[in-house]
Amino acid sequence: MRIHVINPNSSVDLTDAVAEAARSVVSPGTTITAVNPSKGPTVIEGSYDEVLATYHLVEEVRRAEREDRPDAYVIACFGDPGLDAVRELTDRPVVGIAEAAIQMTSFVAASFSIVSILPRVRKHLHELVHRAGATDRLASLKLPDLGVLAFHEDEAAAFETLRRVAGEAVREDGAESIVLGCAGMAGFARQLSEELGVPVIDAVEAACRVAESLVALGYRTSKANTYQAPTEKQYL
Amino acid sequence: MRIHVINPNSSVDLTDAVAEAARSVVSPGTTITAVNPSKGPTVIEGSYDEVLATYHLVEEVRRAEREDRPDAYVIACFGDPGLDAVRELTDRPVVGIAEAAIQMTSFVAASFSIVSILPRVRKHLHELVHRAGATDRLASLKLPDLGVLAFHEDEAAAFETLRRVAGEAVREDGAESIVLGCAGMAGFARQLSEELGVPVIDAVEAACRVAESLVALGYRTSKANTYQAPTEKQYL
Amino acid sequence: MRIHVINPNSSVDLTDAVAEAARSVVSPGTTITAVNPSKGPTVIEGSYDEVLATYHLVEEVRRAEREDRPDAYVIACFGDPGLDAVRELTDRPVVGIAEAAIQMTSFVAASFSIVSILPRVRKHLHELVHRAGATDRLASLKLPDLGVLAFHEDEAAAFETLRRVAGEAVREDGAESIVLGCAGMAGFARQLSEELGVPVIDAVEAACRVAESLVALGYRTSKANTYQAPTEKQYL
Amino acid sequence: MRIHVINPNSSVDLTDAVAEAARSVVSPGTTITAVNPSKGPTVIEGSYDEVLATYHLVEEVRRAEREDRPDAYVIACFGDPGLDAVRELTDRPVVGIAEAAIQMTSFVAASFSIVSILPRVRKHLHELVHRAGATDRLASLKLPDLGVLAFHEDEAAAFETLRRVAGEAVREDGAESIVLGCAGMAGFARQLSEELGVPVIDAVEAACRVAESLVALGYRTSKANTYQAPTEKQYL
Amino acid sequence: MRIHVINPNSSVDLTDAVAEAARSVVSPGTTITAVNPSKGPTVIEGSYDEVLATYHLVEEVRRAEREDRPDAYVIACFGDPGLDAVRELTDRPVVGIAEAAIQMTSFVAASFSIVSILPRVRKHLHELVHRAGATDRLASLKLPDLGVLAFHEDEAAAFETLRRVAGEAVREDGAESIVLGCAGMAGFARQLSEELGVPVIDAVEAACRVAESLVALGYRTSKANTYQAPTEKQYL
Amino acid sequence: MRIHVINPNSSVDLTDAVAEAARSVVSPGTTITAVNPSKGPTVIEGSYDEVLATYHLVEEVRRAEREDRPDAYVIACFGDPGLDAVRELTDRPVVGIAEAAIQMTSFVAASFSIVSILPRVRKHLHELVHRAGATDRLASLKLPDLGVLAFHEDEAAAFETLRRVAGEAVREDGAESIVLGCAGMAGFARQLSEELGVPVIDAVEAACRVAESLVALGYRTSKANTYQAPTEKQYL
Repeated sequence: MRIHVINPNSSVDLTDAVAEAARSVVSPGTTITAVNPSKGPTVIEGSYDEVLATYHLVEEVRRAEREDRPDAYVIACFGDPGLDAVRELTDRPVVGIAEAAIQMTSFVAASFSIVSILPRVRKHLHELVHRAGATDRLASLKLPDLGVLAFHEDEAAAFETLRRVAGEAVREDGAESIVLGCAGMAGFARQLSEELGVPVIDAVEAACRVAESLVALGYRTSKANTYQAPTEKQYL
Repeated sequence: MRIHVINPNSSVDLTDAVAEAARSVVSPGTTITAVNPSKGPTVIEGSYDEVLATYHLVEEVRRAEREDRPDAYVIACFGDPGLDAVRELTDRPVVGIAEAAIQMTSFVAASFSIVSILPRVRKHLHELVHRAGATDRLASLKLPDLGVLAFHEDEAAAFETLRRVAGEAVREDGAESIVLGCAGMAGFARQLSEELGVPVIDAVEAACRVAESLVALGYRTSKANTYQAPTEKQYL
Repeated sequence: MRIHVINPNSSVDLTDAVAEAARSVVSPGTTITAVNPSKGPTVIEGSYDEVLATYHLVEEVRRAEREDRPDAYVIACFGDPGLDAVRELTDRPVVGIAEAAIQMTSFVAASFSIVSILPRVRKHLHELVHRAGATDRLASLKLPDLGVLAFHEDEAAAFETLRRVAGEAVREDGAESIVLGCAGMAGFARQLSEELGVPVIDAVEAACRVAESLVALGYRTSKANTYQAPTEKQYL
Repeated sequence: MRIHVINPNSSVDLTDAVAEAARSVVSPGTTITAVNPSKGPTVIEGSYDEVLATYHLVEEVRRAEREDRPDAYVIACFGDPGLDAVRELTDRPVVGIAEAAIQMTSFVAASFSIVSILPRVRKHLHELVHRAGATDRLASLKLPDLGVLAFHEDEAAAFETLRRVAGEAVREDGAESIVLGCAGMAGFARQLSEELGVPVIDAVEAACRVAESLVALGYRTSKANTYQAPTEKQYL
Repeated sequence: MRIHVINPNSSVDLTDAVAEAARSVVSPGTTITAVNPSKGPTVIEGSYDEVLATYHLVEEVRRAEREDRPDAYVIACFGDPGLDAVRELTDRPVVGIAEAAIQMTSFVAASFSIVSILPRVRKHLHELVHRAGATDRLASLKLPDLGVLAFHEDEAAAFETLRRVAGEAVREDGAESIVLGCAGMAGFARQLSEELGVPVIDAVEAACRVAESLVALGYRTSKANTYQAPTEKQYL
Repeated sequence: MRIHVINPNSSVDLTDAVAEAARSVVSPGTTITAVNPSKGPTVIEGSYDEVLATYHLVEEVRRAEREDRPDAYVIACFGDPGLDAVRELTDRPVVGIAEAAIQMTSFVAASFSIVSILPRVRKHLHELVHRAGATDRLASLKLPDLGVLAFHEDEAAAFETLRRVAGEAVREDGAESIVLGCAGMAGFARQLSEELGVPVIDAVEAACRVAESLVALGYRTSKANTYQAPTEKQYL
C-alpha cells in the first residue's frame, strides 16, 4: 500500500522531516511518498497563508488522482487545510494530522494539551478541537510564539521551549497527554514522552497509522452527499 | 463611504445581481463597487470550488488594499469563504453575507430557516450557523437541489421552488423568518416576505447595511492577535 | 426615520447621555427620541430592579404605539429587559443594546470581553451572552464593582477603573475587542479604543445603527408565533 | 412549617386549584397559604403578560417579607416568572414550579416531554429547559393550543386533549415521563399516569415537596453574590 | 415509609455515619435502613473500585426486592455507581446522592463548587455534573487529595482541609454554594455553612429528602423503555 | 505483537465471531487472542447485565496482567463497559469498540448512523456518542429490536433487518456512513457496504486496527492522574 503525504507548506526541509516521521511508524509493506507544492508560502502561519497553500495542495491531489493514485492521502499541516475539498476529489481515505492526533489521544489519556506555534492560531486550534469533538477533553493550548521553522533554525532552543510549555501543561493545566501541533515538530515526541512520563502524540505519525488502518479496513470516502465529486461547471 | 463587494464566483451575471441588491439598501452617500475574480469557478457549489475561488478572492483584496482601499469589504457568497484570511489583509471591516444575515434574524424573529441550494452543502451550512452562534435558533435547512445559477437560468421555476420550500419551513418547521442562503437569490426577498408574512432576509442586503454601520461606528478589524497581518515569510 | 430609545432606568441624566451617544452615530435623516419612565428605580442593578423597570418600560411602549409610533425601538439598558414582551406589542423592529453590541463584535474581532458594573450581574451577563450565541467568543467578564451612575458621580475615577480592567482583558484574558456593558458608559468608547488599540463597542451606538439598518432593510418583527400580540384576556 | 404559594395569574379559580394540589402532597405539619395578586392579567400566556404579573408578584413577596414571612415560597406559574428577583428579596428558599418539575423527572425517567398550552410559548419553554440543564433529556414539547383556563372552561375536552398529546409524546417521541407544564393542569396527573403507565409530574405538587425539603434541610438562599438584596437606590 | 440507603463501600463505619445523616433530616414517619455489601472495596476511590462495588450493590438490591421491598432506594456514594442498573431492577424510586445534591443547589444558589477527595476523580465528577445538566453552574471542583476515610482517621485535620478549600471556592472561584462530594463527609455541612455563610449541601441528606418526596408524590421509576427489567437470558 | 480481545458477554459463539473479525484485518505479524469470562450474562442487553459482565471482565484483565500481558486490549462489546477501570489496571493501550468505530467514521464520512439492537439502549448509545465527541455528526440511531444473539439464531432474518434499517438511515436520515453497533454483527459490514454504497464500520475490526496502531506508535495509557493504578485499600 502507498500513502501519499502532502506537506502543504512549500518548505522542502519540512517535507523531509515529515517523510522521515511517517516512515518510522508504518508497517513493512507500506510505502510513503511525500511531496510539497513548489509554490505557495514556505510555512503556513495564519489564514491567508492557508488559502494560498490549499490552492496548491488541491492541484497536487488532482495531479495524483490523474497520474498515480495512492491508497490514501495524509495532509501534513496541523491546520488540516483543504480536508473537505480533497475528500471531494478522491474516494481514497484522506487524513488530516490534527484530526488524527486529537482522536488518538482519547484512547490513552483522559485529557490533552496541544503545543503549537504562534498565539495568533488560537482561534483556529479551538475550531479544530471542536471539529474533532474534543473540546471537553482539552486541558490547554500552549502557544509559545515559535515559528513553524523554529526547529529547523535552532533545534536546541526550540526543543527547550517545547519541553518547558509541555511540562507546564502536565503540571499546571491537568494535561494527561500532549499533542505536538505542528508538522515542524516531527521527530521530538519520543524524547519528550520519556521526560514527561505521559503520551506525546506526533501528529504526522498518528495520521499515517490511521491512514494505513483505513486502507486495511477497506474504507473509502463516502460519496453519499457531502464529499461528492465537484458539480460540473466552468472553471475560468 | 465606499463598500467593496466581492463576489467570489466568477460569474459576471451574479455580480450584477449582487451589486443591484447592494445598491438598493445602502444610504444615499454610500458607493458600492462590485467585482468578481476573472478566474476560478463560475459558481461555488462545494469545498473544492471554494478553495479555488478563495485563492482569487484574496488576490483581489490584496490588489484593492494596494490600489484603492475601500471603507469596508463584503464577501458575497453564502459560504463566507476566506473571511479570516481577508481580515488578516486589511484593517477595514470585512463582512460575510452568511454571518450578517444569520445575525440580523435575531432582532426580528425567534427562529429562522435557511433556504439554500444543493443538499451537499448541508454540513457546511451547519458549520456557518454554529460559527454565528445560532444553532439554537435554527428551525431547518431547506436544500431543494437548485444550482447557484438556477435563478439566472429559469427564474420562474426557481422562484416557485423557493416559495414552496420556504413555505414548508414556516408552516411545518417552525421558522419565524427565512434567510436566503445564496448570493444567486438576491432580489427575491421582498416578494417572498409579502407572500409568507414573515421577514425574509436577503443576505447581500443585510451584509451591506452591516458594513455601512461598522464604518459609521468607526470600528476597524482588531489586530490584537487572530487577525494580525501575515507573518513575514517567503512565498514561492 | 425615527428611532425611539427607551432608557428603562428612571435617571434623566442617563437618558441625556444615551441620547447624545445615539445621535452621534445615526445617519443625517434619522431622528432620535429618547425617554425614560418617570417611575421605577433610578438605576437597574439587579433582577428586582429589572422587574420594576420593565413594568414601566412596557407601559411606555404601549403609549408610543397608541400615540406616535416610531420606526424602531431601542431598549437602552445592557440587561435587555423586556425584549420579548416589547416585541409582542409592536411589529416595529426592537433592538436590545446588549444583543446588538455582542453581535457587532463578531465582524471585527475574534473574541471580546464585557466591561460592566457590579459582580452580582455575572450570571445575568452569562445568560445574555448565551442568548446572543456568543459564549465561545467571550474572553472574560470584567465587573469592577462600579454602580450604574459611577460615571455621573466621578467621571475621572470611573474612567480610570474602566481603563484598568479593559486593559487587563486585552493583555491577560485574550480579548480582541471590548464591549462597554452599561448604558451609563456611553461616550467613552472612542478614547478607550485609541488607548487600547482594539475595537471598543458602545452598546447604545451599536444598537441605534442596527435599528436604523433594520428599518432601511424593511424588516418587521415576525408575528408568526413567538412575538404575536398578547392573547385577549382580562387585565385587573 | 409554612409554604407560601403565589399564583402570579390573577385568576382566583386557578389559585384554588393550585392550593388544593399543594395541600394534597405536603407532610402533615406543613401549612400551605396560597394567594394571587389582585391585579394583573387573569392568565399569563406570553411575555407581556409575564412582565405585568411579575410586577405584582414581587410586591406580594415584599408584603409577605414585611408582615408574615413564610418558610419558603413557591411561584406557581410554569414560566417561573420573577424567580431571580424574588430570590433577591428573601433568604427563604424560593422554588419555581417548572424548575422543580423538570428536575424531579430525572430521578424516575430517562427522558420527558412537557405538555403545555399555546404554541407561542415554545421558545420560552426551551429556555426553561435549558436553564434547568435538561435539554438532553427533553423528548418533545407538546403545545396543543389550549389556553391557561381551558381546564376551568371545559374540563372534559381539555383533559381529552391532554390525554391525546401526552400519549403521542410517549408512543412517538420517546418520552419516558410527562411534565404538566401549566399551573392550570393541577389535579390531572394521577389519572393520566395510570392511563399512560409512565410518571406524570404535576409541577405544583413537585415544587411544594421540593420547598418542604429545602426547609427541612435548613438551606437558605445564598446571599454570596447573585441573590444579594437590591442595592440602595431611589425608586420613583 | 421506608428508605433503604445502600452504601456501596464495604466500610461499616461509613455506613453508620451515612445512616445518622439520613435520619437527621427525614420526616417523623420515615424509617431509614442502611446497609453496605459485606464484600468489595472498603472505599471507592476510582473506576476499578466502582466496578467491584457496583457488582455487590446490585446483588443487595436484588435481595431487597425479593425479601423486603423498601419504598425507595438511596445509593450513598458520590459517584452514583450502578444508578441505571438499579433502576432496571425495581420500580421504586432510586436516588443517587450526587444527582440529588447537584440538583438541590439550583434552588438556593446561582453556582456551586464540589469539594471531594482525590484529584484522580476529576473526570468522573465532570461526567456527573454533565449528567445532572449543571455544567454551566459549576464554579470549580476542589480535590484536596483526601481519601474517603480521611474523616474517620483524623477528623480535625480533614475538616481543616475541607474548610480551607471550600473557602477558596467561595472567595476565589465564585461558588455561591458548596456540595460535599463524598459520603465520608456526612455530618459536616451545618458547621461549614455557618462559617462560610453559604448553603453547604450534604449529599446524603439531600438525597434522602428527595427520595421521601418522590414516594410522597407517588412516582415510580418509568418502565417505558430505558429502565425496563433486564431481558430474559442465561446468567452463567 | 499480541492484542487481547475480551468479549465481556459470556457467549462463546460470540467470542468466535469476534475473533474471526479481528483476525481478518490485523497485520501479518499481529496475534489475536480472544476470550470471554466463563461467568456473567450470555449477552449484555442493558445496564444490569453490564454491571455483572464488567465485574468478570476486570477479573480477566487482572489475570492477564499477572500471567501473560498482551500488547493491547480490545473490549468487544459496543457499550464499552469497564473502559476506565481497565485503563487503571494496565499501562497497555485499551480500546473500546464503540469509541474506535465512532472515531473512525470521521475520516471517511461527514455523518453516521449507528445500527444497534434493542430500543432500551438508546440513552446509553447517546452517552457513548457524546463521550466520543460525535453528537454533531450523528445522523440517527436505528434500534430495530434485535437481541445480541439474533445473528446467531436466524442470520438471514437478522441481516434482512439490518439491511432495511441501515438503508433507511442512508436514504431518510442523512447518514453518510453506518456503524454496526453490536459485537454480534461482526462479519456483515463488507456486504452491507457494497449494497448501500457507503462505508460500513465493523466496530471490532476498527478497534483492532486502532489497537495495533497504538502499539506501533509506542503509546502507553497515561498514568498522570485519571488512569493511575487503584489506591491501596482492603478488598473484602
